[in-house]
Amino acid sequence: MSEMKQISRQELTDKLLALFQKLGVSLEDARMVADTLIKADQWGVASHGVMRVERYVRCLQSGGILPDAEFTVDQQFGGWVRASGNGGLGIPASCKATELVIKLAKEHGIAIVNLRQSHHNGAEGVYADMIAKEGMIGMVMSTGNPIMAVTGSCEATIGNNPFAYAVPAGKYGTLMMDVAMSAVADGKIRVLKSMGKLLDPGCVLDKNGNPTNVPDEYLDGGVLLPFGAHKGYGLSVMVECMAGIMSGAALTHEINSWNEIPGHCGNTGHLFMAMDISKMMDLGDYVHSVETMIEQFKNAKKAEGISEIYYPGELEQRRADQAGDKVSLLQSTWESLEAAFASCGLEF
Amino acid sequence: MSEMKQISRQELTDKLLALFQKLGVSLEDARMVADTLIKADQWGVASHGVMRVERYVRCLQSGGILPDAEFTVDQQFGGWVRASGNGGLGIPASCKATELVIKLAKEHGIAIVNLRQSHHNGAEGVYADMIAKEGMIGMVMSTGNPIMAVTGSCEATIGNNPFAYAVPAGKYGTLMMDVAMSAVADGKIRVLKSMGKLLDPGCVLDKNGNPTNVPDEYLDGGVLLPFGAHKGYGLSVMVECMAGIMSGAALTHEINSWNEIPGHCGNTGHLFMAMDISKMMDLGDYVHSVETMIEQFKNAKKAEGISEIYYPGELEQRRADQAGDKVSLLQSTWESLEAAFASCGLEF
Repeated sequence: MSEMKQISRQELTDKLLALFQKLGVSLEDARMVADTLIKADQWGVASHGVMRVERYVRCLQSGGILPDAEFTVDQQFGGWVRASGNGGLGIPASCKATELVIKLAKEHGIAIVNLRQSHHNGAEGVYADMIAKEGMIGMVMSTGNPIMAVTGSCEATIGNNPFAYAVPAGKYGTLMMDVAMSAVADGKIRVLKSMGKLLDPGCVLDKNGNPTNVPDEYLDGGVLLPFGAHKGYGLSVMVECMAGIMSGAALTHEINSWNEIPGHCGNTGHLFMAMDISKMMDLGDYVHSVETMIEQFKNAKKAEGISEIYYPGELEQRRADQAGDKVSLLQSTWESLEAAFASCGLEF
Repeated sequence: MSEMKQISRQELTDKLLALFQKLGVSLEDARMVADTLIKADQWGVASHGVMRVERYVRCLQSGGILPDAEFTVDQQFGGWVRASGNGGLGIPASCKATELVIKLAKEHGIAIVNLRQSHHNGAEGVYADMIAKEGMIGMVMSTGNPIMAVTGSCEATIGNNPFAYAVPAGKYGTLMMDVAMSAVADGKIRVLKSMGKLLDPGCVLDKNGNPTNVPDEYLDGGVLLPFGAHKGYGLSVMVECMAGIMSGAALTHEINSWNEIPGHCGNTGHLFMAMDISKMMDLGDYVHSVETMIEQFKNAKKAEGISEIYYPGELEQRRADQAGDKVSLLQSTWESLEAAFASCGLEF
């Protein structure tokens, strides 16, 4: 951790608010971006944290993200809403969709918000966690531009379409899972390369479509493979069907790579679902069962070399507790923030 | 396929109707059992087909399944229902839950039926497919007794909790995925053993909690591992939270192993979800996008040695089309049916 730099949560937030407001983003929206990205950093998920700010800034500067886009509800049928981010930042649109799905679930028991014309929205687990904190079961899915080969193919055919869920877990906080559909994340491959390590077999193909475990052979035009072969493939297709097509968002190859073409809206699609547990059973009873289940996992016989069994989301929560009021950033993230601020005539 | 025996769909159905009626099951319920199991066999999923009849019969004879249990709706809030199978056969209860969730979705747009006091219900994909055939997105989850170790553990802690979804796919029929959360199915390990083959690494542990790829070392008190490590673990926990706890069904170890203790109700839990696409967008437009996506997959560049790329559910559908009016059964399944019928004083 020697290459990590620390900053207080408050200071980092204030700086980000100034940056995004300078780019024409409202204070309310800027705060959602800052809070969501910082939460991911405090969870220890740097790849979905403020590391993304530089890219958001580039998209805002080149017109691929509209700073003053509004979140609009286009259609409603009972607890089901279709909404649009209208080409704005993905995080404020997703925060508003999450607030809306919670409100709808309070009224209808179960609710879904499908969101289109959105953009990269950080870690899906943040939104699922917001729903769980209201005493509800939360589920979130998002599409992405193709970076993964479907089973049997050797070229990028589909996004690694992240999926998250969360449930209230009483004294254990929130039980939460947030996963992408690839066997390994692109960011992790870059880390392995920098450490001179190899990948596990079966995770990627090289540019000729041959299996490889050498990071450089993937990075030179290779492609990710789904986790669990046809299972990860099938789940990524589910996200396409439920969060993409159902939202009226772009389909697979029509989703713009916001990292490579910052000046063009990605039209990412999302699904936010909430189930208000209290409508069907006593919330305390539900939470008690979740706690019992977690204790069964934690007390299960450990495999050799394992000192502790974690419930889904435990590590993220524990890292956030340890971080407290501090945010630890990679040196490279720090430098990218300096560059992003400088491009707006500000100092980080 | 030399060891497969063929029977006409009609003849097999008639025989099963006679068998289950003899055990006190209504004609309507018996037909649901026969149709659902035969469909799985025609999909080529023998492990979830009429192979299960012998076990159902044993449970019915020993009181673990009540032949005349009714499906009851206990609670409703909008499009969300909590129902009970009241200790009866899992398949009729699941068919009725599926019919109900379709009806509710027509009225409310999105609907969920949580079902408790149920039993083994065959292949979840059959129910998801029924929902998709109504022009809806279907999702189905079921709990099971612990046969899989959670990540970091070396003992059975959780079920391999199957999950299925399906969407209407126009000229491609139904796009459907039906998976369990273990890296490999118990049944498949038995097949590999009979063929003298080894497992892929990382799929199972032996009775001492050590990794093994030898079928016999798993079969001698070993345990399954989740697919994709913490991802399959997290998904199996999701099913526990959404289909088990939310239904008021038994939790992990309280779920009875119906194969080992046939005389005791399993109290399995399920979740059935339906989203009526037409409430939000033109169904034809939705289906057209699914067809376009499928064509992108089918036309993607193939990996070496691959002659065709399949969309989720394509192989099952193709096998069913080839089967036509015939059902192919393993010799061992045939013999188990003869034994089941004989135990009821009938001839198969």
